[in-house]
Amino acid sequence: MSRQILCLPGDGIGPEIVTEALKVLDTVKERFSLDIEVSHALVGGAAIDAEGTPLPAETLKLAKQSDAILFGAVGGPKWDDQPMTNRPEKGLLGLRSELDLFANLRPAILFPQLAEASSLKAGLVAGLDILIVRELTGGIYFGEPRGVRTLENGEREGYNTYVYRESEIKRIAKVAFEAAQKRNGQLCSVDKSNVLEVTALWRELVSGMADDYRDVELSHMYVDNATMQLVRKPKQFDVIVTGNMFGDILSDCAAMLTGSIGMLPSASLNEKTQGMYEPVHGSAPDIAGQGKANPLAQILSLAMLLRYSLGEMAAADAIEQAVGDVLDQGLRTGDIASEGCRLVSTAQMGDAVVNCL
Amino acid sequence: MSRQILCLPGDGIGPEIVTEALKVLDTVKERFSLDIEVSHALVGGAAIDAEGTPLPAETLKLAKQSDAILFGAVGGPKWDDQPMTNRPEKGLLGLRSELDLFANLRPAILFPQLAEASSLKAGLVAGLDILIVRELTGGIYFGEPRGVRTLENGEREGYNTYVYRESEIKRIAKVAFEAAQKRNGQLCSVDKSNVLEVTALWRELVSGMADDYRDVELSHMYVDNATMQLVRKPKQFDVIVTGNMFGDILSDCAAMLTGSIGMLPSASLNEKTQGMYEPVHGSAPDIAGQGKANPLAQILSLAMLLRYSLGEMAAADAIEQAVGDVLDQGLRTGDIASEGCRLVSTAQMGDAVVNCL
Ligand SMILES: CC(C)[C@H](C(=O)O)[C@@H](O)C(=O)O
Ligand SMILES: CC(C)[C@H](C(=O)O)[C@@H](O)C(=O)O
Repeated sequence: MSRQILCLPGDGIGPEIVTEALKVLDTVKERFSLDIEVSHALVGGAAIDAEGTPLPAETLKLAKQSDAILFGAVGGPKWDDQPMTNRPEKGLLGLRSELDLFANLRPAILFPQLAEASSLKAGLVAGLDILIVRELTGGIYFGEPRGVRTLENGEREGYNTYVYRESEIKRIAKVAFEAAQKRNGQLCSVDKSNVLEVTALWRELVSGMADDYRDVELSHMYVDNATMQLVRKPKQFDVIVTGNMFGDILSDCAAMLTGSIGMLPSASLNEKTQGMYEPVHGSAPDIAGQGKANPLAQILSLAMLLRYSLGEMAAADAIEQAVGDVLDQGLRTGDIASEGCRLVSTAQMGDAVVNCL
Repeated sequence: MSRQILCLPGDGIGPEIVTEALKVLDTVKERFSLDIEVSHALVGGAAIDAEGTPLPAETLKLAKQSDAILFGAVGGPKWDDQPMTNRPEKGLLGLRSELDLFANLRPAILFPQLAEASSLKAGLVAGLDILIVRELTGGIYFGEPRGVRTLENGEREGYNTYVYRESEIKRIAKVAFEAAQKRNGQLCSVDKSNVLEVTALWRELVSGMADDYRDVELSHMYVDNATMQLVRKPKQFDVIVTGNMFGDILSDCAAMLTGSIGMLPSASLNEKTQGMYEPVHGSAPDIAGQGKANPLAQILSLAMLLRYSLGEMAAADAIEQAVGDVLDQGLRTGDIASEGCRLVSTAQMGDAVVNCL
């Protein structure tokens, strides 16, 4: 039976970069004789425009039936006036939650060809390779109660709930410990346990699991310090595990340290091997439709999809190799451009990867 | 009538660096004929050890009576086993709350003499001067309900509440708009309004105030993007305003960009001119008692105290000038040491500032 990939291009540069990733998929399908079927659906602002909702029932149904989802990006100023419950982001958050994609893996890797692109001094980031494991279906993103109420004195008050239960903490910690075992054996758990009870429980439970992973060296850091340490000495980290909101902040910070946020893919996995794969960067509405976007994060997301959800290691490796090759050839989109390199468009970059395959 | 300063050295390196700041205070008292009385009290771990509580009633009473508080730092592994309600940090949080010190001003400034200390490339940070305005008495730090409960299935669940009401948002935004007016007229408000209702209310209310400050250019950023932008291009910011938790993270990130976190003071003010002044760095238990700590952030906190709470501008200017002079002389504590400079102890650094006065 053929495997099903659902394509959700979304908004902004999403459609452009997904188009390039699909060119690459066609090529590896042929080269590695993969039996993969691709379907398409609407999500985010595009779905609001067409159907009035960021996550149409048909999209969710297709998502649940698929083996893996290739996701572009959602959001943009066009939908800023949507009520909170109908924003483009709700499409993304709804998929994460409905498919129980609790484990978000965000590698922050410095591509040696792009060493100069980092804002940090070269010595601090050369060879940087951090994996951020972010809990993705709980915490303050999904906690209830939430909303805006009017107080007795007539003032409005906004409120959200930051909540984690034992089983949620343990299952993401397990993913992180296991990832650390396969890497350099170091895990740093990030919390604010000196102030927030929910993260004190987090620290207690993660600590309690350390005995089951004696080959992993576990440390803990407060989130404010972790952000500082990322800037000060990023190579001290191997794997970082943290909750949804701190993970949102830390993973963007780590990605930016590499100077190549247009290059970084991510995977969101559930207990089965089902997963959603998307670039770490967003929908970049300011450059949408201009052929300027860097499709490499999307293409590398496809590689992660082939590796984690379809088990097609050779195809995944080939794509990553091809991306390395186009960088070696000096091809660059605007976001990673530097002197002496050749500036190319989104489509030219995609074609170049195809040619290297 | 003489003005009252309450000294709360706290834990770790707190006592050492406060000692140096008090030497400096004695000197400016004499030179500028200031009528200031200094009293001392216990807070944090030191207060737990002596009295069983991080904020003894006597300390709080003295704090309320004082015109300003010079605060060192609190916390350390020694008190890690204290229950959440009795941690050293509760001394600090209790003072902020009881004195209604809602406006936390955290300048992130690159000292030209320390340009090399930043992990960022020199061009990106030369002349960096950002002011972070952090709300300090609300948000998830103080929101109720909070705690850990046991669910019906026997699992434990931790929870905290992120809450802001209209008046809290408006009063901190006012401080930030006014600060921007006195600086470069740019204010960036940081939230996560695409996900959190409480911060959507924040964005709405801050936007609504823009008309009253037509000389200020207001922008908004999501917290994940703001962290990236701080790393990517920090000089795009002038004043940043945000809530308690995001402010904790962003201010440490911004401070670290300067490479001189041992140099950065902060002020926490209420609606009167009463304030608490403390270094941005923490209690650094690993180097406590070794004469290695950098006292300059504490000394610059004293300068802020004299300026904001006592209105002694000349004395404040003189201290800041003296700190610049010792840096010009090439004196450095370990945290800011670089080749060709003279490594000095905590006390030697304090003495050097006194000599320059
Ligand atoms: C678009 C937004 C809801 C999302 C998040 O905050 O999780 C994004 O920032 C991300 O990190 O994937
Ligand atoms: C010590 C801790 C409670 C405190 C905070 O989180 O506010 C500190 O990190 C700070 O930034 O002043």
